[in-house]
Amino acid sequence: MAELTANLTFETRAELMATAHALADAAREATLLHFRKPGLLADSKETARFDPVTVADRLAEERMRAILAQRRPQDAVLGEEYGALAGTSGLTWVLDPIDGTRGYLSGTPIWGVLISVADDSGPVYGLIDQPFIRERFEGGFGLARTVGPSGEFALECRAARPLAEAILLSTFPEVGTVAEHAAFRRVADRVRLVRYGMDCYGYALLAAGQVDLVIEAGLQAYDVQAPIAVIEAAGGVVTDWQGNACHQGGQVLAAANRAVHAEALALLNG
Amino acid sequence: MAELTANLTFETRAELMATAHALADAAREATLLHFRKPGLLADSKETARFDPVTVADRLAEERMRAILAQRRPQDAVLGEEYGALAGTSGLTWVLDPIDGTRGYLSGTPIWGVLISVADDSGPVYGLIDQPFIRERFEGGFGLARTVGPSGEFALECRAARPLAEAILLSTFPEVGTVAEHAAFRRVADRVRLVRYGMDCYGYALLAAGQVDLVIEAGLQAYDVQAPIAVIEAAGGVVTDWQGNACHQGGQVLAAANRAVHAEALALLNG
Repeated sequence: MAELTANLTFETRAELMATAHALADAAREATLLHFRKPGLLADSKETARFDPVTVADRLAEERMRAILAQRRPQDAVLGEEYGALAGTSGLTWVLDPIDGTRGYLSGTPIWGVLISVADDSGPVYGLIDQPFIRERFEGGFGLARTVGPSGEFALECRAARPLAEAILLSTFPEVGTVAEHAAFRRVADRVRLVRYGMDCYGYALLAAGQVDLVIEAGLQAYDVQAPIAVIEAAGGVVTDWQGNACHQGGQVLAAANRAVHAEALALLNG
Repeated sequence: MAELTANLTFETRAELMATAHALADAAREATLLHFRKPGLLADSKETARFDPVTVADRLAEERMRAILAQRRPQDAVLGEEYGALAGTSGLTWVLDPIDGTRGYLSGTPIWGVLISVADDSGPVYGLIDQPFIRERFEGGFGLARTVGPSGEFALECRAARPLAEAILLSTFPEVGTVAEHAAFRRVADRVRLVRYGMDCYGYALLAAGQVDLVIEAGLQAYDVQAPIAVIEAAGGVVTDWQGNACHQGGQVLAAANRAVHAEALALLNG
């Protein structure tokens, strides 16, 4: 945590957290307005890949930005849909209104809203919300918890276990480039169980102590910053595939503990 | 629907549906007792494949069987964990206490409880329950509906659209045998979007009008009978990969409508 954030008053931290929940509440309502409804529109930002941007995606980010303009005009904003807005406080809100638009378009309950606050060292607080389930995961400023249909629980990553007993998640079976996929397979072939298709919900499950590893590639800053904050607050380790900070996106290796992180890192590179 | 079921009184149909909901309520409680809890036990029924059977799986089926023994002693039972029990009514309850045990063990919200009633023609009523989300899908006896965190809705499969705009779901990227996988790929390569990892929740999404196709192989009777009833009640079509009845399991092609079913069937076979 950089000096700026370490020096934040408790009042400011509480205001940042309250603002994050206000954003999540607004995004929950906006995304559910269109979820599973007929006639959901999707267009493509790229012609080469299917990357749907829905009406809900834009509406959710617009509503979050409107709240930030009112409550935190001094902070910078980086959002998936509407790009970067400069600030003066040294803090940046990083927003992904719908992480997992493919899952959203398919009606699944494993896409999510990602909200985080970063200083120049990276994310210091993050929140993952699943609007349909009404389930929220947050971490940072000394807190690591989830609130959902079964109640409220502390988030705590699971303890080390042999890699042969570990559960590995990834969004796509076709992870990254050919070389990245080969590296991924070296880990996948050694674990007990690999599951696909979890989108950001996979990071939430890691923070909740349910799985051991999430490995992905080709991510953006707004895809990873909230998960990093939540997982680190729950005791986990998140780096790129070389063991360095990954809050700018790219390759991500998220692990429940240092031991399984080290094992997976060695396999990715060898 | 066979003559037996066609001749059931409205009172008997209502009693069967009430019993199905009582089973689902009991299974919801039993499965949530252990879901996401530390120390969940898993052992393996087969040495060659990871096929966990949890304490929750057995507990949920035991509780459902106890209810059936009391309320419907005249009916036969076929369950994943405890096998077949003969009956005298000509009706069979087909139970899968946790469909998607791998997803359950990983903490995901897309496993489910499958409950159905069959006569000698196949399933006539089915129910898919997702305990953690508190979401239930049912179909048969003139009803097709879902009740969940967003309220109650009619289930209706989506209308025909070009295959190039269709969404295809499957549980595993490694579908079936080498030949089955090649057939699956012929369909997968023509659709807009393929998603993996949905377990029985994929069939629920098909019935809810969210996706166009679910293609799987290597299934058991208890994996498919509830989905068949729910999807057919919602206007969809479920057969094996040759277009025949599939309520005994094996290969499954579930489609939102006759047009996309015919297109997918042709590609699977050619």
